[in-house]
Amino acid sequence: MRDFDEHNITAAVIERFAGTPDARLKQLMTSLVRHLHDFVRDVEPTFEEWLQAVMFLTRTGQISDARRQEFILLSDTLGVSMLVDAINHRLPAGATETTVLGPFHVEGSPEVANGADISAGVAGEVLFAEGTVKAADGTPLPGALVQVWQSDAEGFYDLQKPELDGMALRGQLRTDAGAKFWFRTITPAAYPIPYDGPVGDMLTATARHPWRPAHVHFMISAPGYETLVTHVFVAGDKYLDSDAVFGVKNSLIREFEARSAGAMPDGVVAEGPWRYLKYDFGLKPLTA
Amino acid sequence: MRDFDEHNITAAVIERFAGTPDARLKQLMTSLVRHLHDFVRDVEPTFEEWLQAVMFLTRTGQISDARRQEFILLSDTLGVSMLVDAINHRLPAGATETTVLGPFHVEGSPEVANGADISAGVAGEVLFAEGTVKAADGTPLPGALVQVWQSDAEGFYDLQKPELDGMALRGQLRTDAGAKFWFRTITPAAYPIPYDGPVGDMLTATARHPWRPAHVHFMISAPGYETLVTHVFVAGDKYLDSDAVFGVKNSLIREFEARSAGAMPDGVVAEGPWRYLKYDFGLKPLTA
Repeated sequence: MRDFDEHNITAAVIERFAGTPDARLKQLMTSLVRHLHDFVRDVEPTFEEWLQAVMFLTRTGQISDARRQEFILLSDTLGVSMLVDAINHRLPAGATETTVLGPFHVEGSPEVANGADISAGVAGEVLFAEGTVKAADGTPLPGALVQVWQSDAEGFYDLQKPELDGMALRGQLRTDAGAKFWFRTITPAAYPIPYDGPVGDMLTATARHPWRPAHVHFMISAPGYETLVTHVFVAGDKYLDSDAVFGVKNSLIREFEARSAGAMPDGVVAEGPWRYLKYDFGLKPLTA
Repeated sequence: MRDFDEHNITAAVIERFAGTPDARLKQLMTSLVRHLHDFVRDVEPTFEEWLQAVMFLTRTGQISDARRQEFILLSDTLGVSMLVDAINHRLPAGATETTVLGPFHVEGSPEVANGADISAGVAGEVLFAEGTVKAADGTPLPGALVQVWQSDAEGFYDLQKPELDGMALRGQLRTDAGAKFWFRTITPAAYPIPYDGPVGDMLTATARHPWRPAHVHFMISAPGYETLVTHVFVAGDKYLDSDAVFGVKNSLIREFEARSAGAMPDGVVAEGPWRYLKYDFGLKPLTA
């Protein structure tokens, strides 16, 4: 094949992938070429625009390192991460909706008992959180592993607070015999995604803000069920309708209810005002 | 907007770009999101595949530097560069077809007189090249600037030969009063694009080769005309039908004719066998 023009080049490039040994890779490359060429034909970039795109992608790779993944941020801010999440989580009734993992999950957070305080002394408004973990069909799941992580009252994660000695505002606990979990922490705050790189430049150029509404992350796993990765968002947050990474779902929003000093649900007495969060999770069974 | 699912998230993301101040950027982002989401819905990537794509793009950025641009190579090998080229060069009859600039052009190559030898002593089969530069309508263009660059007989450019002292196998000359140019050089050879990075990994995984058929690059400019960037390919090269960057067009292929010792077109006598190339170029007028 020679003499490619703007119309026949797509078929020619796809034909070049015809010999790909792996059938899935062949499918991916074929679809990529078709959609990428359709995009180019649609917008008809000038050479200067094409080179700007090349340099944007180059900078996005070059700013990434072991602590920062700018291409994931790009995927997040273009709604691709949540689209991939949705495609991979077609849920039965009763299963909790999912959202992006985000960049702040870490393996090996402290194992704590129910009722523990995971704030590790970080200042903030006391939050008592509790809930249950069940299968989508309502079967209680005692012994389920509940990992939780969140920002502090100013929107920073422990990873972003070099003054901290070790982890804070994260932990893992297990549901009790009644499939319940409960812990103490502080109320999280809204925060901006990192915006000092190419993705931040894109947000600025398109008059978008980098903020995420306040939330607590949960990752919940039990044998025989798909691991659930989700957030619970604070009702009333001003960024719920404009989350920079499109992670909000109505079913994941809860009141973090204001309570006065007095006994909390496990009998421990709060000396001042505190907030109360309750969320019952439903897990999707693994399909064979 | 909340409660994004795999169907409505695309409209939600596009809506987020509605306030983009620059109309062209808004058009680009809107189309990008639409086509990117269509691609994701088409192939339904797993999380692992999505992360592999993220890491591939990251490596593509990170291997790029002042001397290597892997995203351009990726664009070239996916046929995008030639598609952009085609869109930007819708040509009138009589205009020479265009092809990719490639990574080996440099500014400030030696200015030489017609008849000069640009091989700078690099060994190879003698080539005498000549031609004319005219407007697409046939108007001769004396004084047009003809930049030429090419590989050596083993497929390497001067930039890839650190043992060379300065430039070789490149130069710029001007058409004479009759709109003619002519020079001496050596016959170029086929060569592989750099394949020790992510793009090479992609080619290997898809059973594609990295070779480009032998060619001489031309960049030709004259006041009032679009600058022409093209190659002339050597007829008979075994990679003409499988150029790794999709740059071949039939109208750009010429015999590099074998000749015996004796007088060359400008009267200079060749002591041994040599090759002869003739190509007449047509330039597209600038539109107001």
